[in-house]
Order: sequence, then C-alpha cells, then structure tokens
Amino acid sequence: MEENRQQQRISDLGEFGLIRHLTDDLVMKNRSTVKGIGDDAAVLDYASTRVVVSTDMLAEGVHFNLVYTPLKHLGYKAAVVNFSDIYAMNAQPRQLLVSMALSGKYTLAMVDEIYAGIRLACERYGVDLAGGDTTSSYTGMTLCFTAIGEGSDEKITYRSGAGLHDLICVSGDLGGAYLGLQLLERERMLFEREKGMQPVLEGYDYVLERQLKPEARKDIIALLDELGIKPTAMIDISDGLSSELLHICGQSGKGCAVYADKIPVHDETRRAAREFDIEPLIAALNGGEDYELLFTVPVAQYDKIGNRPEISIIGHITDSSEGVRMISPQGEEIPLQAQGWNALR
Amino acid sequence: MEENRQQQRISDLGEFGLIRHLTDDLVMKNRSTVKGIGDDAAVLDYASTRVVVSTDMLAEGVHFNLVYTPLKHLGYKAAVVNFSDIYAMNAQPRQLLVSMALSGKYTLAMVDEIYAGIRLACERYGVDLAGGDTTSSYTGMTLCFTAIGEGSDEKITYRSGAGLHDLICVSGDLGGAYLGLQLLERERMLFEREKGMQPVLEGYDYVLERQLKPEARKDIIALLDELGIKPTAMIDISDGLSSELLHICGQSGKGCAVYADKIPVHDETRRAAREFDIEPLIAALNGGEDYELLFTVPVAQYDKIGNRPEISIIGHITDSSEGVRMISPQGEEIPLQAQGWNALR
Repeated sequence: MEENRQQQRISDLGEFGLIRHLTDDLVMKNRSTVKGIGDDAAVLDYASTRVVVSTDMLAEGVHFNLVYTPLKHLGYKAAVVNFSDIYAMNAQPRQLLVSMALSGKYTLAMVDEIYAGIRLACERYGVDLAGGDTTSSYTGMTLCFTAIGEGSDEKITYRSGAGLHDLICVSGDLGGAYLGLQLLERERMLFEREKGMQPVLEGYDYVLERQLKPEARKDIIALLDELGIKPTAMIDISDGLSSELLHICGQSGKGCAVYADKIPVHDETRRAAREFDIEPLIAALNGGEDYELLFTVPVAQYDKIGNRPEISIIGHITDSSEGVRMISPQGEEIPLQAQGWNALR
Repeated sequence: MEENRQQQRISDLGEFGLIRHLTDDLVMKNRSTVKGIGDDAAVLDYASTRVVVSTDMLAEGVHFNLVYTPLKHLGYKAAVVNFSDIYAMNAQPRQLLVSMALSGKYTLAMVDEIYAGIRLACERYGVDLAGGDTTSSYTGMTLCFTAIGEGSDEKITYRSGAGLHDLICVSGDLGGAYLGLQLLERERMLFEREKGMQPVLEGYDYVLERQLKPEARKDIIALLDELGIKPTAMIDISDGLSSELLHICGQSGKGCAVYADKIPVHDETRRAAREFDIEPLIAALNGGEDYELLFTVPVAQYDKIGNRPEISIIGHITDSSEGVRMISPQGEEIPLQAQGWNALR
C-alpha cells in the first residue's frame, strides 16, 4: 500500500485532489488569517480593512502557447486573471506582484512586451505593480502573479454562503474563450503542416478576444454595489461553469438546478461551435477561461437583478440531496461533473 | 539602435538591471501602496497595521539541484528564504502562499516531501500556509512563494535609511552557504564520473546545513526589539555581502567602509575554503544565500549592540563620495562590486 502511494502519480489526483491532499489538515494559527486555502483568494485581517490575496502560476506550453499568444496579451491576461480572483471575493485589487522565470531564448524586447501587457492591465484596473521576482529557467517561461486587494468584512463573499432557493446568476456569456482556443489550435496545426500558411481568423474577433485578452468583471462588482446586493456566494469562472457550480454547492453544502436554455452563450460562440462540431452548451459548461462571475443572491432580490442585460439568472440552489443538476429544455435532469480543463492532466 | 535593443539579451542586463529596466518609471497610485518595488518586500497599508509582502521564484537546475537537495529541505528553504525577506523589513511573517509547477516526473510522494518541509518551516516560524496554486509544467519544477507579514509603521525598516556614521552590523557569519554548495557540487561531479561512489561529506555539517537548510533570523528581529533598537536600514544577505552593501548604500545615497578583519566567517567555512583554494573573505563577500541580516544603527547605540556575540559590527556609513569600500588589515582600500550570484547568468 505504502509502496503504491509512493508511486502514485499526481495526475491521478487532479489539481483539486492534489490541493486537498496537501492542505486538508492545515490549521490557521494567526488571528490575521481570516480565510486560508479554499476560495478564490486568502483573506487577511490586519485591522478594520480586510486584505485579500490570490496567486496564479502559468507555465509555457501548459497554460499558453507562444505560437499564437502575443506576449503583450499574455501579460495582460495573466494580470487580469489574478484580478478576477479578487473581484470574485467582492473585493478590489490594489497591488500586483509579478514573478517570472525566463529561459535564454527570451530577449529583452520580449520581456518588455509581456510587461507592456501587465502595465496596461494594471492601469485599466487601477492596480499598482508593487513587486515581484525575475529569474532564469532552463526551459521556457513560467509566470507567477500575486494580486492583493482590499474589501470590507461585510462585503467579502466566499464560495460557501449559498442558501436554499437562492438564485444562481452569471455575468456575460460562456464558452467563448474555449472556442477561441479551438480556433487558434486549429490554425496552429494547419500552419505546422503547411509552413508559411497564414491563419484564417477573420469573423471570429469575439471568441479570439475572449481567449487572448479576457477582462475581469470589475463592472459587475461595481453594479452589485450600486444595486445594494451582496451575493451570498461568488466565484469566477476559470475552469468552466460545471466545475464552479460544484465548488459553490460543495462548499455551501447545497445542491442546484440550472436550466440549459438559460445559460448565456454568444452568437459567435455558437457559430464557432458549429464549425468545430462542438455542442455550445458543453463549451459553456466545461470550457473555462471565461472569467465571468458566478454568484448567488436571495430570491427576494430578484427585482433588482432580474432584468439586467449583463446578468443571467440560470437556476437556483436546492437541498444537497438533489445534487448538482442541469435541466434540459425537455425536462431531463443531467448531473453535472467537473470536466473542466485540468492543468495537471 | 532599436534593432540592437530588440536583440539585447536579458543576461547582459543582469537581474537588477532587468528589474530596473522594467520598473523604473512605475508610479504607485493606490493610497494603500506604501512601498512598491525596490526593497525586500512591498509594504501595504490597509489601516493602522502595515502589510508586508514578498515573493520569490525558484527554478530547478537554476536555484536548486535535486541530485543533492532533499525535497524536504528544498521546501523548508524556499519558505524560510521568503520569511527572511519579511524579517529584513523588521516585520513578522504571518502567511505564506505556495505555488508550484511540476513536470510529470514528480510523484505524489515527492510533492509530499516538499510540503513537509514547507509545513515544518511554517510551524517553526509561526506562519499560516494560506493559499497558492499547483499546476503542471513540461520540464522540471518551478516554485513561487509569497510571504505576507505585518509590521508597524514605526518599526518597518527600509534599505534606504542609513545615515552618515551609522554602524554597519551583520548577524551570524557569512560564506558558509557558498562553501556548502561547492562541497555538494564537487561530490556531484565525482559521483557522475564514478557512478555509485558515495559522497564524502563528513566533518562539514555546518556549511552543508547553511546551504541546504538555512534559517531566517527571527531571533535577531526579536533581539533588536528587546534592545529597543530600530535599524536605520536593513536587508537580508541573499546575494552576498558586497551586493547587499551596494543596495543599502545606493538606496541611502551613502558610501561605506567595512573592515575585512571584522567580517564574520565560521571556522568550518575557513577550513572548507582552504580545501577549495578559495579566499574565505571572497565567499563572504560574493557567496550569497547566507540569509543573515545586514543593518545599520546610529553610533549612539553602540553600547547596546557592541558586545553581542550574534552581531558583528563590520564598518560604518560614509559620504557617498567615498564609495563602497572594504579596508584590508594592511589599510588598503578595495572598492566593492556586486559579483554575487546572478540568477540570470
């Protein structure tokens, strides 16, 4: 048995399994650690204001392919993805720490491009680039970004607060980033087969932008504040809707029913999905990287949020015994599973 | 010219040059950003308590060699090195975020070993492991650790506060970690030449421990507090004494004179240096990775600190026009240069 465990491959556990395995029995000892591992960001209390921290690591070839990712976009996306984690706590990002390990193939001009993207993101989101580390690697590039934000105790929103009958809401639309990736991958493969061939990407601006230059939903956080709504639970959609619903339901000890025909998908995403013979709904459920916000609000707040074009109500929270389900237009119940993009496979 | 710059290699700039190049004109905009890039850690103000944050990236083959680095030691060292940055701000580490990118060769048992070291360090230093990210890489392992600490506005110590005539102090002794590395490298090369040969490392426990399992000087921070001393400037010695003196003098707009015969070197470090035909002083000046604290205090505090066995007074701060110099026992003046370990070369 022990022998067996020694040889167990990390990929068998998956990312979440590995995190659970490594951190399950951790006990927080510092008064200032309000919330450690297990949400979009850690929450720290150094006085009346809460400090919210999140970190993300991106490895070349795993999280990005430089064949089709402009370096400036890469820097921008890596920063925005971190800010998204802070917004998903209903907090505001204020500082960013940028670490990068670079192999010898990178020139200064390339690093400048990455930084130009990082700085643009920081400027647009009002974040200070406040530190980091730069070092070399033997192979490729690894980026590690840490975003630090602030929030008030009353507003910070965890994954764990969804209540029975709460409405499940999602901002924007889903699946676009995944189709953007399919498109880029197809063109890359064609290019590799026939060198010099120019990629055909016209007419897909939206899904390409969703993949290459996503935005974090700062506007939704501002809107919720304006509407006087504090979500009961919130998460950003980085691994796909299914995976995030499972996180919210799992950590809230609840189940849910979401309606397939309520899940927002952009027209261009549908069109691209048809080209790739992919069910648009599958892209929305499992695609990931959309960086929209998934959140729950009490039913009583329906009036405030029911007819906002930027927010879709896709279902409601149920008792945990009912599981995490999607209801098809025909009334079929489909249990949702985390088939999202798993960086460890 | 532009063409030239486009092709400029990062290694020509060095790590500090690259950081300067990338961040020179950054302006901090958030009130909560007290100090951004340019010290051991960023300092954030979210109320009356200051939040101090530092991040470090370690790449396999560049910062560590798994042939002779036990994984548990690696985890321990990576954590401690981060804590050291927080202590160097005269602050207390409270949280640690751990990110790792792992290639397929890593088994769960290996990751467990790394985590065992991280957890031991967190326990010993009273730090909460509060978050992180775990993902895959195509090659080797990259670690990115972010330490978050707290300090009071009155106590936080920057690199930039050294005053004219201040005493220059260093904790512990220097050069040991470098000799430990030489020893391990020699045995690795012998082992590779004659497979199966067992390494001969007896009698070098001290320098090996300095390299493989360094400690951060939490005790010195506590001692300074107890003695009622707030250093005027402080930095931890990660790149070698020369490099750190240049940082303090550069950022304080001062020069310095340090006395060669005052620089503390352990007997075992001297003995190992003789074996390798290395001048012990060179190891102390340029070796790095000792994680001792280098700090300055006003002359008036000599009485408090002058006869502490754990602290050596090695020189004093001068006008910047006098440069950053070492004085030999014969009275020769040697200008110090940053020849420390440069991760980008």
